[in-house]
Amino acid sequence: MICDNLAVNQKGHLTFCGHDTLALAKQYGTPLYVMDEDRIRENCRRYVQAMKEHFGPEALPLYASKAASFKRIYQIVKEEGLGVDVVSPGEIYTAALAGFPLEKAYFHSNNKTDEDIAFAMDHKVGYFVVDCQEELDAIEKEAASRGLRQKVLLRLTPGIDPHTYEAVNTGMVDSKFGSAIETGQAAQITQHCLGLPHVELMGFHCHIGSQVFDADTFVRSSEIMLTFIAQIQVRFGYLARELNLGGGFGVRYTQEDPFLDVDQEIARLARAMEEKANQMGIPMPQVRMEPGRSIVADAGLTLYTAGSVKKIPGYKNYVSIDGGMTDNPRFALYGSAYTVYNAGKMNDPVALTADVVGRCCESGDIIQKNVSLPATVRGDIVAVLTTGAYNYSMASNYNRLCRPALVMVTKDRSYVAVERESLAYLTQNDV
Amino acid sequence: MICDNLAVNQKGHLTFCGHDTLALAKQYGTPLYVMDEDRIRENCRRYVQAMKEHFGPEALPLYASKAASFKRIYQIVKEEGLGVDVVSPGEIYTAALAGFPLEKAYFHSNNKTDEDIAFAMDHKVGYFVVDCQEELDAIEKEAASRGLRQKVLLRLTPGIDPHTYEAVNTGMVDSKFGSAIETGQAAQITQHCLGLPHVELMGFHCHIGSQVFDADTFVRSSEIMLTFIAQIQVRFGYLARELNLGGGFGVRYTQEDPFLDVDQEIARLARAMEEKANQMGIPMPQVRMEPGRSIVADAGLTLYTAGSVKKIPGYKNYVSIDGGMTDNPRFALYGSAYTVYNAGKMNDPVALTADVVGRCCESGDIIQKNVSLPATVRGDIVAVLTTGAYNYSMASNYNRLCRPALVMVTKDRSYVAVERESLAYLTQNDV
Repeated sequence: MICDNLAVNQKGHLTFCGHDTLALAKQYGTPLYVMDEDRIRENCRRYVQAMKEHFGPEALPLYASKAASFKRIYQIVKEEGLGVDVVSPGEIYTAALAGFPLEKAYFHSNNKTDEDIAFAMDHKVGYFVVDCQEELDAIEKEAASRGLRQKVLLRLTPGIDPHTYEAVNTGMVDSKFGSAIETGQAAQITQHCLGLPHVELMGFHCHIGSQVFDADTFVRSSEIMLTFIAQIQVRFGYLARELNLGGGFGVRYTQEDPFLDVDQEIARLARAMEEKANQMGIPMPQVRMEPGRSIVADAGLTLYTAGSVKKIPGYKNYVSIDGGMTDNPRFALYGSAYTVYNAGKMNDPVALTADVVGRCCESGDIIQKNVSLPATVRGDIVAVLTTGAYNYSMASNYNRLCRPALVMVTKDRSYVAVERESLAYLTQNDV
Repeated sequence: MICDNLAVNQKGHLTFCGHDTLALAKQYGTPLYVMDEDRIRENCRRYVQAMKEHFGPEALPLYASKAASFKRIYQIVKEEGLGVDVVSPGEIYTAALAGFPLEKAYFHSNNKTDEDIAFAMDHKVGYFVVDCQEELDAIEKEAASRGLRQKVLLRLTPGIDPHTYEAVNTGMVDSKFGSAIETGQAAQITQHCLGLPHVELMGFHCHIGSQVFDADTFVRSSEIMLTFIAQIQVRFGYLARELNLGGGFGVRYTQEDPFLDVDQEIARLARAMEEKANQMGIPMPQVRMEPGRSIVADAGLTLYTAGSVKKIPGYKNYVSIDGGMTDNPRFALYGSAYTVYNAGKMNDPVALTADVVGRCCESGDIIQKNVSLPATVRGDIVAVLTTGAYNYSMASNYNRLCRPALVMVTKDRSYVAVERESLAYLTQNDV
């Protein structure tokens, strides 16, 4: 099993956090997102403990809530003592509904509108992570009109290629995000920022990419950022208090993916950073990291009911499920790998290789190709693992499908965190 | 201009169906879907007239409503006399809300659940387009329990490669859709169907792909289907009454895309089919076609407000907008081409080449790369053309963004057809 919250019970059924997945499918219906609250908390604690131990008590992980944003998750993250990374009024609003202390929220986005900036200040969002000078000026203007001083970090691009998939490489110089160190634009915006009376520069942010499986790229980007901080101190007499290294630690989607020891990698990163800070003659800044995927991905799975099982002799087999790219667009978008099981026949021998496909009228609606399955028939429950990140949050109503319910499980109970969409909800905005 | 509903007014603003797009953006806010009702009706009439003229009065175009499904569109399509292709309870429910006569609806999908089948029968959907034998048996069972006889078409795969993008090639033998003629499975399911007492086989369906710019592939697939119909008549004594050739006619996304003359191509198709039917010694079946994209695509555009304009010397320029892959995921999914304008500066000289990118925290959130633009600044209105199909219908709330309003325009007026999502709506299902 790719994660230790998965097992097989005596009936040969897949269990998740101790719950029989067939029983969950029966109780709540399919398609169904299931999330393991215990695992989310465990993942949170791993980051909190590792960061406080290796970076000191002021260090803080921020949950990158775009990975999975709904009211309940902000409550859990709040209880675990993390901050949050929010990217829109929708995320701010949801966090506020959940009672999350927004002074611990960092507001990201490469394009914050004037309305967004006002909205975030209305909600007293602690930090703005500023993407570029136009945005900085818009924040200064709004803060001035309110007579306040807004804490900001400046997002910089250190020019690192983390050797991952193009669409998630965000730390390179050529990026829609941030200001490049290499081109001198980072120093320029820093200088500009230091001259503004209504923003308080707290430090710098960078984000190097996704699905990173060791601390090496973090070490490299932190070295570039620490060098920049030292240079800025010499040049402008400004010492950054915070260094936010973004997110990016990878998770296991398949057996082939490596395990990542968060504690060990953060320890390595901390040692390298201290050495670099010493070498540059600057104190260690307070470190922030922004795990999203690695907090929620392996805490989720999706349950579907199989429909038609189609065998085309000499070609291929297809197993259709009652969801698809609407609730999980990641294969359609990125060709992402997933582990797929027939949840009720875990001990049965492999009987067919099939593409597991969604129900949308679109050939590209595929969950995974070439899946090894036991004899599978209409009505079987299919489980797709590691769907806790970027599934619910990216879901659509394509083909006018209602989005699934999201059910939380703990060792002791299960409960609905997000209700299944109804047809009335679906058409509520139709005039 | 790629479509004749676009023009530039004296202020140098882009107009759409006679409306100043900057005025629309101001009145309704951005991001905003705008759809040209007059153009939708014109596109509908073009199909109705061409099909009735060349195939005879029994021929009928069915609007493939997955291209854009909301209450108002079903009213328009109803008034224009088309049938509809629906793919889910959500589409059936919305059509019913709009008062669409569901006896003219064809229910598609490669995976209709038992609940879907019951739902469609509850709503007296006229036709089921049956994907495979398991589904056929489920329909027979449900129809039997209700004591009715359900009209069905069988979806077949003629084995045609329309030379378009893989994800939208659905008529090949290796497809999640339908039963293959080549493998004998089509004849098999036909024979099985003819033995079922509670389904009435009306004919056959095929769909060869998308963005097809001439009738050639339709001619080829219709010849295969007519040959199959003739063989089935000989073999089982059953003469198909209807032949549904699916959708697929292309639309102009850019100046490089060809014009397609629907009347002329349908005339060509009709001549070729009559010849083939004569040759095979069978009467011409009643023809159905399922245009979706070519009914609504060029009747839509999306208006955005530009945010940061980022110039990275020696690399690239970026113009961020206040929407993105959430309201138009087609570049992220397929790398789709779009025509993009600075709507308020149509007569200004080109001043920069930039990637027009969305506001999501994801590098792949791109609307179009390498767009030629005039000098563009924060606050400018950006128009993306030909977004009437597969934009609203594929939209998500990724990054917890609210989906845009959809405004309809006619020569005389504008009105809201789908309200902008509110934050309250966004969180309505959160427990």
